Amino acid sequence: VIAREPGELLVEARAGSRGALARLLTYVESGGESQRATAALSYAAPAPYVVGITGAPGGGKSTLTDQLIGEALTRSLDGSAIDEVGVLCVDPSSPFTGGAILGDRIRMQAHATDTRVYIRSMATRGHLGGLSLAVPDALRVLGAVGFPLSFVETVGVGQLEVEVASSADTTIVVVTPGWGDAMQANKAGLLEVADVFVVNKADRAGVAETRRDLAQMLDLGGDRQWRPPILDTVATTGDGVEKLMDAILQHRNFVDGRSHDTRRAKARAELERVLAAMLRERVGVIADGAAYEAQVDALVAGTTDPYQAAESLIGLA
Amino acid sequence: VIAREPGELLVEARAGSRGALARLLTYVESGGESQRATAALSYAAPAPYVVGITGAPGGGKSTLTDQLIGEALTRSLDGSAIDEVGVLCVDPSSPFTGGAILGDRIRMQAHATDTRVYIRSMATRGHLGGLSLAVPDALRVLGAVGFPLSFVETVGVGQLEVEVASSADTTIVVVTPGWGDAMQANKAGLLEVADVFVVNKADRAGVAETRRDLAQMLDLGGDRQWRPPILDTVATTGDGVEKLMDAILQHRNFVDGRSHDTRRAKARAELERVLAAMLRERVGVIADGAAYEAQVDALVAGTTDPYQAAESLIGLA
Repeated sequence: VIAREPGELLVEARAGSRGALARLLTYVESGGESQRATAALSYAAPAPYVVGITGAPGGGKSTLTDQLIGEALTRSLDGSAIDEVGVLCVDPSSPFTGGAILGDRIRMQAHATDTRVYIRSMATRGHLGGLSLAVPDALRVLGAVGFPLSFVETVGVGQLEVEVASSADTTIVVVTPGWGDAMQANKAGLLEVADVFVVNKADRAGVAETRRDLAQMLDLGGDRQWRPPILDTVATTGDGVEKLMDAILQHRNFVDGRSHDTRRAKARAELERVLAAMLRERVGVIADGAAYEAQVDALVAGTTDPYQAAESLIGLA
Repeated sequence: VIAREPGELLVEARAGSRGALARLLTYVESGGESQRATAALSYAAPAPYVVGITGAPGGGKSTLTDQLIGEALTRSLDGSAIDEVGVLCVDPSSPFTGGAILGDRIRMQAHATDTRVYIRSMATRGHLGGLSLAVPDALRVLGAVGFPLSFVETVGVGQLEVEVASSADTTIVVVTPGWGDAMQANKAGLLEVADVFVVNKADRAGVAETRRDLAQMLDLGGDRQWRPPILDTVATTGDGVEKLMDAILQHRNFVDGRSHDTRRAKARAELERVLAAMLRERVGVIADGAAYEAQVDALVAGTTDPYQAAESLIGLA
């Protein structure tokens, strides 16, 4: 197999080649020179509009995303019809639960064969930064190829999700009735990422309590210019999906009105993420030599402490 | 308040002063020069024996820890009676759920007034590395002060817990009957940290299934020299706690037999943790200057990409 030039692939992908697009996304997953070249091209194009969807497993996120894809294809953005939608499914535990990813795609069955929809599961290939770099890069690729809107679906509100949310323009947090405990444990993360709250499976008991808990959490979260709305949906029937899409586009307009700040904040987040990954890579390089082993020996012998040892190693780097 | 010298405090703490010990632990939580000086002293002393206890919230970890404290005080280690036990309670979400920490201490009521037992809740003070450095340092302080055995209780199996587990010699993962879903989501983390599995609340239905799920997970996890035993406990009555303590000490003997490897692995983990924290700190410094803002401007303008921008900044550092 001859490696194709990212620039050539981008031209083909813009002309509609899904194969070329798939190859570009594999480049950003795999790391190395092709990743850098693909990123350089993608970040030169205007940033795409990205909607993040996150929440605990079992909340119906895939079904909801499926409904949102259909709804989005009936709408327009900046006066142009949304004629194509990209979807990234991210599951950091995928090496261990490969079935879940396949399941996601199958649950999004309404659009699995729709040529206007491109669905991709993202997996880490263990390169520099892993998913926390590959996902933002992949979203930029989708934008550069011409998708006016992309969804990115993640599980939970851990570190990765917070990072992914920083590359989404609008983040939806999906909860279900009776979700109180999970909410308690993740309050800080939720408040940090949510632009819109959705109580899915709203045909079940306990919706009012969940809404009240969310509203209280927002009250305690202090003043903010955008207060995340709390919406009810039943993803299996599509109830509430139209209103949810309205709320998403409202948030987009709000963000657009402050677009300079937002773009700077996004650029800053992107840069910090890559910077951190490069420095982590450097730890890996430092941690692989004779000087490092000598410091480990000194630690075992008790003649140094980890702070002193790290300082001498950084001095060498 | 005049800052006391860590060396002086360590002498007093060794003589039994809980006030001096508390001050040393505050130093490692707070960062800065006092942290470094305290760490230098603590890492010069032999490493303590540390038992980690982790698992999802609501599994009865605090009650179990309480029972283990009592059991440990009847045992001996290397021919000497375990006459003192240190306990660290770690809750990374504590700034938001302050009540949970207080609750932990109250649930450990059997030993709250026992002078042989020192219980401390660890909170991050937002310094370099936060809890991922403060907890290992605090465990070393307890060892340097003379505690033959310390417990460290954490919630969940996220990144912090994996890091804390790397500074424990024996890690107990506490699950409860019907814990299947949480287990699925965290398989990799569980397999990575567990030396002993405990099915607590074993008087409830579903114990056999949970044991079977755990055993299957271990079967799939590949060969390892130590296969984590799966034990049943009822922490509220103390059933199974004696056997659990036996298993802990068996694992300790196993680890002791390979002590050179283990000590090197621990030293390596300590060094990597501090190195990563120092490099993160460096990101903070880099991310705070005019050169950084210039790169952010270039990103917003689309004239660079985050990789190129990060490389130029690292070149300047």
